[in-house]
Amino acid sequence: MAEHWTTGRLAAELGLGCDGAADVPLCGVGALDAAGPGQLSFCTGGRWLRALGHTRASAVIVESGVQVPTAVVPLRAADPRLAFARAAALLAPAWWPRPGVHPAAVLAATATSQGATVDALAVVEEGATVAPGAWIQSHAYVGRGATVGAGCRLMPHSVVMDGCVLEAGVWLQPGAIIGADGFGHAGGPGGVRIPQLGHVHLEEGVEVGANACVDRAALGETRIGARTRLDNLVQIAHGVRVGADTLLAAFTGVAGSATLGSRVRAGGRSSVVDGVVIGDDATLAAATGVTKDVEAGARVGGAPARRYRDWLRESVALRQLPRLLRAVAAVERRLEELERDRT
Amino acid sequence: MAEHWTTGRLAAELGLGCDGAADVPLCGVGALDAAGPGQLSFCTGGRWLRALGHTRASAVIVESGVQVPTAVVPLRAADPRLAFARAAALLAPAWWPRPGVHPAAVLAATATSQGATVDALAVVEEGATVAPGAWIQSHAYVGRGATVGAGCRLMPHSVVMDGCVLEAGVWLQPGAIIGADGFGHAGGPGGVRIPQLGHVHLEEGVEVGANACVDRAALGETRIGARTRLDNLVQIAHGVRVGADTLLAAFTGVAGSATLGSRVRAGGRSSVVDGVVIGDDATLAAATGVTKDVEAGARVGGAPARRYRDWLRESVALRQLPRLLRAVAAVERRLEELERDRT
Amino acid sequence: MAEHWTTGRLAAELGLGCDGAADVPLCGVGALDAAGPGQLSFCTGGRWLRALGHTRASAVIVESGVQVPTAVVPLRAADPRLAFARAAALLAPAWWPRPGVHPAAVLAATATSQGATVDALAVVEEGATVAPGAWIQSHAYVGRGATVGAGCRLMPHSVVMDGCVLEAGVWLQPGAIIGADGFGHAGGPGGVRIPQLGHVHLEEGVEVGANACVDRAALGETRIGARTRLDNLVQIAHGVRVGADTLLAAFTGVAGSATLGSRVRAGGRSSVVDGVVIGDDATLAAATGVTKDVEAGARVGGAPARRYRDWLRESVALRQLPRLLRAVAAVERRLEELERDRT
Repeated sequence: MAEHWTTGRLAAELGLGCDGAADVPLCGVGALDAAGPGQLSFCTGGRWLRALGHTRASAVIVESGVQVPTAVVPLRAADPRLAFARAAALLAPAWWPRPGVHPAAVLAATATSQGATVDALAVVEEGATVAPGAWIQSHAYVGRGATVGAGCRLMPHSVVMDGCVLEAGVWLQPGAIIGADGFGHAGGPGGVRIPQLGHVHLEEGVEVGANACVDRAALGETRIGARTRLDNLVQIAHGVRVGADTLLAAFTGVAGSATLGSRVRAGGRSSVVDGVVIGDDATLAAATGVTKDVEAGARVGGAPARRYRDWLRESVALRQLPRLLRAVAAVERRLEELERDRT
Repeated sequence: MAEHWTTGRLAAELGLGCDGAADVPLCGVGALDAAGPGQLSFCTGGRWLRALGHTRASAVIVESGVQVPTAVVPLRAADPRLAFARAAALLAPAWWPRPGVHPAAVLAATATSQGATVDALAVVEEGATVAPGAWIQSHAYVGRGATVGAGCRLMPHSVVMDGCVLEAGVWLQPGAIIGADGFGHAGGPGGVRIPQLGHVHLEEGVEVGANACVDRAALGETRIGARTRLDNLVQIAHGVRVGADTLLAAFTGVAGSATLGSRVRAGGRSSVVDGVVIGDDATLAAATGVTKDVEAGARVGGAPARRYRDWLRESVALRQLPRLLRAVAAVERRLEELERDRT
Repeated sequence: MAEHWTTGRLAAELGLGCDGAADVPLCGVGALDAAGPGQLSFCTGGRWLRALGHTRASAVIVESGVQVPTAVVPLRAADPRLAFARAAALLAPAWWPRPGVHPAAVLAATATSQGATVDALAVVEEGATVAPGAWIQSHAYVGRGATVGAGCRLMPHSVVMDGCVLEAGVWLQPGAIIGADGFGHAGGPGGVRIPQLGHVHLEEGVEVGANACVDRAALGETRIGARTRLDNLVQIAHGVRVGADTLLAAFTGVAGSATLGSRVRAGGRSSVVDGVVIGDDATLAAATGVTKDVEAGARVGGAPARRYRDWLRESVALRQLPRLLRAVAAVERRLEELERDRT
């Protein structure tokens, strides 16, 4: 049975201010311009204020001081976006199936999946373990000897190759590939591929985006820390180590054996060369190309990466370069004239 | 039974000039250097003219005035490439299977697929609708409550997640993922993921490339306009809106809630930051990084994006920068000398 | 039964120097800090020397002159990484299944797969040929009329579309897509898609990374030369030709009809525009954007690509641009003063 929520109960649960009616029932969420009666929305100000004036939502999460239409209950939060994310998880909880193995799933004789949900046409290979409460969706693949923790969700077409380990609560978006062979090569062109004998370990609550890849290590492990999130089409090479609570945006690529700290944020299309170390809390602007170690807490941009401020200054200066070329040519002419005069 | 085509009938059908024999039978197409008797080819001039001189094709589409070997029938078009594309669709129509559900397909009890083709090991979940004439290939996945229109083709390993809508004639190349969760996060590192409760709507005739991703909206919809084509490995984030007849080349990434107009062309590896608006008919050079709104019809390049002409000028100027550094050092020495003289 | 290896036998087999005990048994490999008794490791010097001092491995491959702990047998090689790659293939050979078709595999009536291994839920379509010794893993797809050579390995979720040809020993990592339609379009936005009627041919020993794509040609073939390796998320467009022993790192994109020679090395995120020719043995730095032909043996960087040395020089000069702007402003002031004096 669905839980019954009201403005007051939600405010109490999430620690929000509520200066309107506390007994308005809430049964879902929606965008400001689409939400209707019974639904909660949120407004972060700026260009969204106009939509706020016309919303038909029953309640809206806003910062203190923001005015809402009289028919709307304002719920107050310092970070409305964050508060709404938490509220949505309560008001519109993700659907989750009951445990059970679909008759068209293929489980090897030595695989275990008690208490888990395994959908049609999923494959779980020999010696693999799927913990209770995990959900293996259709066309997902769990390789030989792999471990999938409690509450994991492997969406359709996600792949966990042999021997990889997913702790509890890991989500793989569709097409995510965990444990493909790293791109190891010795002896240059015409050389040999290096056998990739390690595995991948994803800690608790990691999320891997659609068609993203985390390669197995050549030896040992590639490891992603707790709650770290990889966006779609991210590439993590063999032997990389990433800390906890790190966020890597789409198309980011991390080369072999690099180390990223915790709470790192990388903008889309960032690159990290092999072997470098990026400290905790570092921030990479979009399209940054990291070629040397980055200190904890540093903010960098550009390729090769440098202090964000320096990079911005260079980017601005670059716009003036055509003018500068003309200016220097003019200076040279004026100098020649002065020099001619002197003689 | 295959249709019978001749040079004359094809010319009439496509509005081409035909100054040779009109009764030459045509039964297929080929490249200039590979086509044989009964086949049609085309030539766009330049480096292809040499191959034209030796072709064994029975007919070749060329611009007016281009000479062809005597045994070859010239068909005249202002844009031979475009005319050939149309001709190939007639002479070598794509194979399409008869309707029917393979016994090894898995359809939920409440799914409907009457008149559609569903191949082995495809999955259609509860409440999903597949329209007559659609083709769901092996290993394709149609999520709960999703809608697949008439004449859609979901190639092997393409994925349509729950509740997404594909209008008629949409093609998903292998590995394309429609409706994965957007990369929504509130509160920074250590914060919470924002539930992604919206869906994706692909209008009539959209084509999505291999391993490309179109994420569902957090609320509301991500929408791609009619006949828009996404190349392989393109990433469209949550809540993006793209107009009709737009072409986005490989590795292009569009961040959350950005809006692209109709007939936009983006070169490979273009990036668009969240929330910006790109007008109709705008052109983005390869690897452009759009950070601000782009006017309709504008041509931009560089990162951050600026007028294409300015960017070109700066790129050229950059090549002269090492020389400029030396020139300024020389200027400074000469100035010092003049200043010394003066005193 | 596993083969019995000793330090002496391995040294003889691979041509390594062995100045310690020749009779130490070896049964596996490991990283310096993880290997234990009976295992082989390697050390390339530098930052790894510390781990070498504490290793519990029974033998370590090192360059001549490098000291190892007394309990460890040193095996000498000029390139320890290369020698280790070869040794690992002997000591830890990849697991390979026995031939046979799983009852839950789906083979069309006219498909042939004698002597091959076809796992559960793999699909082999009408007229496709899978050679003896090939291994088609779960959820892999082999399209109509496709050919898969001896010893090929199609990992889970890899796709070979209709009519494509894989010679012997090709490996497709999970999610690799061979033969999707090329992004061919005529007549600009609002124009028509060009039917893609060609195929893909992968020569002997090619390896394609996870979620990488090799598109079929519009006419004729897209061809990848022997032993060439594509990293994850690489994109090869229609009609491209790549030579042998070439290495393309992650996110590299090659546009339509470009030609790459043999033994080319491209760093991650390199781009090649359509139609250009890159000679044998050329090297592309990471993120290079090739817009014109590149000579054999050349080393290039930057976008647009130029000589690597010139690009480096410009990159360094760019860092001095803000200072240069100030310097030129100062020069202009001093000039004005001199000019004022003169009059």
